[in-house]
Amino acid sequence: MKVGAVKLGVAPPAANRGIAILDFFLRLIAITGTLAGAIAMATTNQTLPFFSRFVRFRAKFNDLPSLAFFVVASSIVSAYLILSLALSVLHIVKANAVNSRVLLLLLDTAAMGLLMAGSSAAAAIVQLAHEGINKVNWFAICQQYNSFCKRVSGSLIGSYAGVLVLILLILLSGVALSRR
Amino acid sequence: MKVGAVKLGVAPPAANRGIAILDFFLRLIAITGTLAGAIAMATTNQTLPFFSRFVRFRAKFNDLPSLAFFVVASSIVSAYLILSLALSVLHIVKANAVNSRVLLLLLDTAAMGLLMAGSSAAAAIVQLAHEGINKVNWFAICQQYNSFCKRVSGSLIGSYAGVLVLILLILLSGVALSRR
Repeated sequence: MKVGAVKLGVAPPAANRGIAILDFFLRLIAITGTLAGAIAMATTNQTLPFFSRFVRFRAKFNDLPSLAFFVVASSIVSAYLILSLALSVLHIVKANAVNSRVLLLLLDTAAMGLLMAGSSAAAAIVQLAHEGINKVNWFAICQQYNSFCKRVSGSLIGSYAGVLVLILLILLSGVALSRR
Repeated sequence: MKVGAVKLGVAPPAANRGIAILDFFLRLIAITGTLAGAIAMATTNQTLPFFSRFVRFRAKFNDLPSLAFFVVASSIVSAYLILSLALSVLHIVKANAVNSRVLLLLLDTAAMGLLMAGSSAAAAIVQLAHEGINKVNWFAICQQYNSFCKRVSGSLIGSYAGVLVLILLILLSGVALSRR
């Protein structure tokens, strides 16, 4: 410990540089997953091949508030992740940084919470759309809106992948802070 | 920095002991919120004052899969938080611990994610119960199941308070690791 502190700038910073590089690439993966989920959800819509005189049956994500929340949440997290690349690069250059790592830990945690909230709210509604709850007369709608449901379910995968990567990033921040 | 490393055991550990004590009390608050949420949700049921020949109208949390998931998730997180008090006490005694802090950071992050997932899935369903989505013929059920809906909404508050405290705990772990 004392030796490490005297030889400041040798062993631990090198390990931390490796962690920072890993952090950068994990962020790229998280951006891909989150952004893909947001775009897939936002561009989904399905018009049914029949319509009544007044209503055209058309399903879009913003008919369902939880799916709209999902799009907003994952867009915010995507934007944050893109901006956070700057801090990640800073940590590659300046492997000994402390305050910015703690800041990144807090922001990553908040981003993970927001993304998890959006994904789980959407998942709850998608599950309902698939299975329905007959007891309270909410019937499954995925028989009619089949491609809509498939697309929406698919976009959750990217977003949950983003959550997993963010948990990994939080762990990496902790390890980097402990190795200083 | 070098001075701090040589006077090992003086300034930083004292600060970390304070953080560990704060951590312990925050965990108690999180346990209260999460456990209260789980119990309030699990014990909710409402029997309507009318019934048909075959069906007794009775709403329980496990009629709705998302609410059942909420109860499971917040029970697991409550159990984890109670067990984690042991590590928290260890950090009060041994303020310089590193590996156990990183472990606690990872577990807290996972617990936060799980609690957020349960709360948000339940919130999505509760929002639907309150407002319904007429376009897909899911009608609001809170007019009928009024006290059920109130109780369920209330139990979400405790659980979201738990999420906030867990985010704070993750930040505290980061600060403690950075001050070593």
